[in-house]
Amino acid sequence: MIHVLIIGNGNVASHLATAFEKNPNIALKQISSRALDSVPMSDVAIIAVSDDAISEVANKLVNYQGLLVHTSGSVDVKQIKAKRNGVFYPLQSFTKGKKVDFTQVPFCLEASVDSDLLLLEKLAQSLGAKAYRINSLQRKKIHLAAVFANNFTNHMYSIANDICDQEKIPFEILHPLIAETANKVQGISPKEAQTGPAIRRDQQTIEKHISQLTKEQQRLYLLITKSIQSH
Amino acid sequence: MIHVLIIGNGNVASHLATAFEKNPNIALKQISSRALDSVPMSDVAIIAVSDDAISEVANKLVNYQGLLVHTSGSVDVKQIKAKRNGVFYPLQSFTKGKKVDFTQVPFCLEASVDSDLLLLEKLAQSLGAKAYRINSLQRKKIHLAAVFANNFTNHMYSIANDICDQEKIPFEILHPLIAETANKVQGISPKEAQTGPAIRRDQQTIEKHISQLTKEQQRLYLLITKSIQSH
Ligand SMILES: NC(=O)c1ccc[n+]([C@@H]2O[C@H](COP(=O)([O-])OP(=O)(O)OC[C@H]3O[C@@H](n4cnc5c(N)ncnc54)[C@H](OP(=O)(O)O)[C@@H]3O)[C@@H](O)[C@H]2O)c1
Ligand SMILES: NC(=O)c1ccc[n+]([C@@H]2O[C@H](COP(=O)([O-])OP(=O)(O)OC[C@H]3O[C@@H](n4cnc5c(N)ncnc54)[C@H](OP(=O)(O)O)[C@@H]3O)[C@@H](O)[C@H]2O)c1
Repeated sequence: MIHVLIIGNGNVASHLATAFEKNPNIALKQISSRALDSVPMSDVAIIAVSDDAISEVANKLVNYQGLLVHTSGSVDVKQIKAKRNGVFYPLQSFTKGKKVDFTQVPFCLEASVDSDLLLLEKLAQSLGAKAYRINSLQRKKIHLAAVFANNFTNHMYSIANDICDQEKIPFEILHPLIAETANKVQGISPKEAQTGPAIRRDQQTIEKHISQLTKEQQRLYLLITKSIQSH
Repeated sequence: MIHVLIIGNGNVASHLATAFEKNPNIALKQISSRALDSVPMSDVAIIAVSDDAISEVANKLVNYQGLLVHTSGSVDVKQIKAKRNGVFYPLQSFTKGKKVDFTQVPFCLEASVDSDLLLLEKLAQSLGAKAYRINSLQRKKIHLAAVFANNFTNHMYSIANDICDQEKIPFEILHPLIAETANKVQGISPKEAQTGPAIRRDQQTIEKHISQLTKEQQRLYLLITKSIQSH
């Protein structure tokens, strides 16, 4: 039996709590991150609060005797000043109210001692999730890579949506292509998967495209095209 | 029974032929786009050759009496000078050797007369595909939108891959996030789905990220961030 304490009530805290509750091998307690006067003992305490609040919350728990971890992709493990600190970062984008399939969530784990890493691995496995040992430098890189793979990718969808709207084309017509584009790189590398006018250096098509775009879209189109070509 | 002639042996031609062959209501013939001396009669002839070769191939078929269509997203329907012309554009990215699920392929259909549009709709339906009536202007916009939703998105994956490689992080760790990002916009609009430091105007994180990137990646990061913020 692993005794888990979740600190916080936000997006990540709620999804983790829902998942842990289902597991008979986990004894779960959840408390607000605002009231930390009496903190129950546990094997692991998971601070699942906004990045900016992690160090403030952790500072109230310096005397905590269990393993104290946060769930952030970008915050240094050293911001947790307890005796045993670590990271339990779920590399996925959570949406409030949308069920999470934790078998599809890779966990990036960090801890100073091997026994703590093993404990975090057990915890990830109890959710059916995949676990990776990732140091702080690697985690920062992953967080940065995720900005490209998630936020910037989503912005490409946004611009595609704007272009569709101009001619009253239902955006749903692009759903299968978006799904297939994401699907392709699960099997081959993005470099191998690259197609289109940029990589073909099809200058005629590129110019036709440019002429149809707004100034801001043109700048993006040109810069990304150049980047694809120099890749 | 619809008599279909496919002209060409490339990627699209092969995938279409494989799919039509399975349908007992389609009588299929396929010929090379290089030998057009004696072209068998059919209800529809599908010119599935490179964009640049469409008009050359169509010009050899000006006297063709059936419905003559191409499969391109960017070529004007007027490049086909036959009596009855049209477009049968599958909005999907095909890979040689990878099976295509045509129920996941939206077809953009164009023809001058209604009876020809109905014929193309029947054809798309015979593949289990969804059909959309799309004029040439709309099709050009869709093709442009697809560059953002497919080619540029794939380049974002490429950069994420490069960043992972720097610290020997397996790129597979991002697969679930990539899948979820694509999945999210099948239900809500990309604008609603946008998250991350750019939209939060989290200047501290943005600066930390910039400092970790190459010059070229920095230019992309800054421009896309600005674009997200002004959106
Ligand atoms: N959302 C994701 O997709 C995702 C994915 C992976 C990792 N993460 C990481 O997980 C952590 C939590 O993110 P989240 O999305 O769950 O955030 P969230 O939904 O915005 O919830 C934030 C939580 O932090 C608490 N909080 C904020 N400021 C505080 C303070 N000064 N003192 C005490 N508590 C404070 C909030 O309490 P109140 O409700 O009382 O304000 C709330 O419970 C972050 O480190 C984030 O980077 C998020
Ligand atoms: N690939 C996709 O994902 C996709 C998706 C939607 C639409 N499309 C469109 O579908 C069409 C075909 O694309 P594809 O990917 O199937 O191309 P592909 O695999 O490169 O095949 C091109 C075909 O065109 C023929 N061809 C090239 N130049 C020719 C010429 N001057 N005269 C006669 N035949 C010529 C080739 O014949 P040889 O083999 O004899 O050279 C080959 O059969 C294009 O309009 C494309 O825009 C493609």
